[in-house]
Amino acid sequence: MDPVADTEPGGGFVQSLARGLTVIRAFDESRPEMTLSEVARATDLSRASARRFLHTLVQLGYVWTDGRVFALTPRVLELGFSYLSSVSLPEIAQPHMEKLAAQVHESVSVSVLDGDDIVYVARVPTSRIMTVSINIGTRFPAYATSMGRVLLAHLPDPEREAYLERVRLEPLGPHTLKTPDALREELDRVRSQGWCLIDQELEAGLRSLAAPIRGRSERIMAAVNVSSHASRTSGERARRVLLPPLLETATRIEADLRVAPSARAGT
Amino acid sequence: MDPVADTEPGGGFVQSLARGLTVIRAFDESRPEMTLSEVARATDLSRASARRFLHTLVQLGYVWTDGRVFALTPRVLELGFSYLSSVSLPEIAQPHMEKLAAQVHESVSVSVLDGDDIVYVARVPTSRIMTVSINIGTRFPAYATSMGRVLLAHLPDPEREAYLERVRLEPLGPHTLKTPDALREELDRVRSQGWCLIDQELEAGLRSLAAPIRGRSERIMAAVNVSSHASRTSGERARRVLLPPLLETATRIEADLRVAPSARAGT
Repeated sequence: MDPVADTEPGGGFVQSLARGLTVIRAFDESRPEMTLSEVARATDLSRASARRFLHTLVQLGYVWTDGRVFALTPRVLELGFSYLSSVSLPEIAQPHMEKLAAQVHESVSVSVLDGDDIVYVARVPTSRIMTVSINIGTRFPAYATSMGRVLLAHLPDPEREAYLERVRLEPLGPHTLKTPDALREELDRVRSQGWCLIDQELEAGLRSLAAPIRGRSERIMAAVNVSSHASRTSGERARRVLLPPLLETATRIEADLRVAPSARAGT
Repeated sequence: MDPVADTEPGGGFVQSLARGLTVIRAFDESRPEMTLSEVARATDLSRASARRFLHTLVQLGYVWTDGRVFALTPRVLELGFSYLSSVSLPEIAQPHMEKLAAQVHESVSVSVLDGDDIVYVARVPTSRIMTVSINIGTRFPAYATSMGRVLLAHLPDPEREAYLERVRLEPLGPHTLKTPDALREELDRVRSQGWCLIDQELEAGLRSLAAPIRGRSERIMAAVNVSSHASRTSGERARRVLLPPLLETATRIEADLRVAPSARAGT
């Protein structure tokens, strides 16, 4: 009853699954609707293969077609939702994030490390302070963000050194750190002080403050941050007004995580 | 270079893709981490097949393993993110939703119809008014929600009748409508008045108000709502205080959609 898999050696890589996921990921802002030929081109598949994958996704309800163009349906969100609902962190953090956002009138986010990126897993926006739009699932290079630095700072030393060796520091904002040595020094400081303030390194005008969230095993599983416009929030105001409630929020989330039946944050 | 697909007839259903997606969806709140045997049981796959799919997902970075248990990684969010970024609606709606939430101090959401469910595609929460937690990707049966009724009300008549014939109205809240005829009457009223007020039908204590969002083709592509606690918001307050800014918000989103380069909301 498994004719396709049976043609492969046990434990082998399932090419069809990889390609099907590539088809899903081929749709984006610049290509919300594609014809069969466009999908084939975007995914490097033959037209015949692209047709099979698209029709399978249509039958499963993940793709919609009018016979000519194809587009994703909202059902695709369920795949990401599997992750979110398998992680109790976003749900546990949300009420504490809402309280903090209401108190300081700034956007509050929680993210986790995935490879060399941070990924947003929960967010309470309060204003449009960034020109880029941030959603759950949005990724940024870890080195340029306050949450990323907190997460990098608490990596085991060998992992942190491997990261510093391979990372390429792009000047994303006016003040992005330029060398791995400068970043290492900053990570040491973040680890010892227990929080991170970043000033316009990801984007001009953005100042943000992050603190670590420890899971039950004491391992840092995520970071929570408050982001603000630099013109509204000096470094001094961030430390005086935003830092105490941010640290309190992290502590409250950690306390709830300790009593949750199961809490993990992916990798 | 496509050995698996080549064993299938052109245009055939790619079983491996369907099964791989089933593996992703098998992880949830009650099963955030599973052993190989647990995944096989949850997905009705043989252990050998489950192993192939899991190892493929590990190689692609969607699943993490310590050698014994498997879990999803945040990379899975990128699949849902493909949908969100292929739809300009959430991004276009977000600033207008934030303005409305700040003005009325209530949560604001946008959702689309997918089959018989509504699916949340954007949300600005302001307080924890519901015992269920709502995220992007959360689904509810359309008939019991204000946004769902707005979307059902504007379906073409044959589709609406087919829906009314197949729907099973479960008593989800104290005031859920009980018969398809009562629902049809309510949908007529919603269509002619241009908005929908729902009082504790999805859940006790929840009162919410929704308005349609028309795409460029004049087709209703989504709905926007404000939800409030029934004790705080009488039906009278909802109509007097919440309705005018809600309708204004829908109109502003529609105006932005008309000038956007490409805007669709899936199905």
